[in-house]
Amino acid sequence: MKKKVIIGIDPGTRITGYGIIVVNGNSYEPLDFGCIRPPVNYILSDRYHIIYSSLQELLKKFSPDEMALETPFINKNPQSTLKLGIAMGTALLAAKMHKMRVFGYSPREVKCFITGTGKAEKFQVQNSVTRLLSLKSAPEPFDATDALAIALCHAATPEVELLPNQKTREL
Amino acid sequence: MKKKVIIGIDPGTRITGYGIIVVNGNSYEPLDFGCIRPPVNYILSDRYHIIYSSLQELLKKFSPDEMALETPFINKNPQSTLKLGIAMGTALLAAKMHKMRVFGYSPREVKCFITGTGKAEKFQVQNSVTRLLSLKSAPEPFDATDALAIALCHAATPEVELLPNQKTREL
Repeated sequence: MKKKVIIGIDPGTRITGYGIIVVNGNSYEPLDFGCIRPPVNYILSDRYHIIYSSLQELLKKFSPDEMALETPFINKNPQSTLKLGIAMGTALLAAKMHKMRVFGYSPREVKCFITGTGKAEKFQVQNSVTRLLSLKSAPEPFDATDALAIALCHAATPEVELLPNQKTREL
Repeated sequence: MKKKVIIGIDPGTRITGYGIIVVNGNSYEPLDFGCIRPPVNYILSDRYHIIYSSLQELLKKFSPDEMALETPFINKNPQSTLKLGIAMGTALLAAKMHKMRVFGYSPREVKCFITGTGKAEKFQVQNSVTRLLSLKSAPEPFDATDALAIALCHAATPEVELLPNQKTREL
């Protein structure tokens, strides 16, 4: 089976987590993971531009085949949802510039796949990611762990497996 | 006084309105206006990519000095807010790629400036835009009118004039 490189993204205006894995059949290997943290005193547009440029560098360096994005569906604060949308747009565009396909997973789907329950705590996700990727220590911070979890979830999900009313996972 | 070119953007996933004006002291002249309508049967990421590429072309053609964006604060449907955020992010990044500053105005602020009331109907905004830009006929569709209204609102707003609790209009 052909090797595939997947980049998982946990988008956010303050912290955008990323996790890059190589998938070889049923085995997963981490390539890189971490966070993009634009300075908080920068204006919003500059912060998104930093996220975009940092993602572009990662895509150039690792040439992933596909991107998996966390797509939250509910947020009580419309302002936060709007900002999250901008961060998601930044990741989407970075992927499109590299002619990559992008797939979306809800936080619940990711947790379900990784831990077996959609209500898992952050440390449970961390433990499962550590085990699945045979890491010597737990990946930090949580945003990077989440991004690796998203990449793993995408790696293991057949493209046809969809939620009811969901036409496609591709964004 | 130096001439200034402003592009107003009414972002949206289905229709993104744009309006470009030249400001020369107190006189305003329209340069171009219209809509970007990515095909609705395209996947989301391709639609945002079309918005981004179309905006890039406009920025290249008209070299605006500044961008004014409509920044809605309330949307009952979080999914729509998220999509709107992605469309906003697309416009923000297009501007940043051209090293342009971006300023945000709420729909209420725009209506207030254009018509004198924050609760104006769409046709009232259209009438005022037609008059302010001395257009022979009303600009169409409404998304293009709104974009021209946003550009006009920005052209007439001193940078220091802010709402309470608003640190800056710059995004």
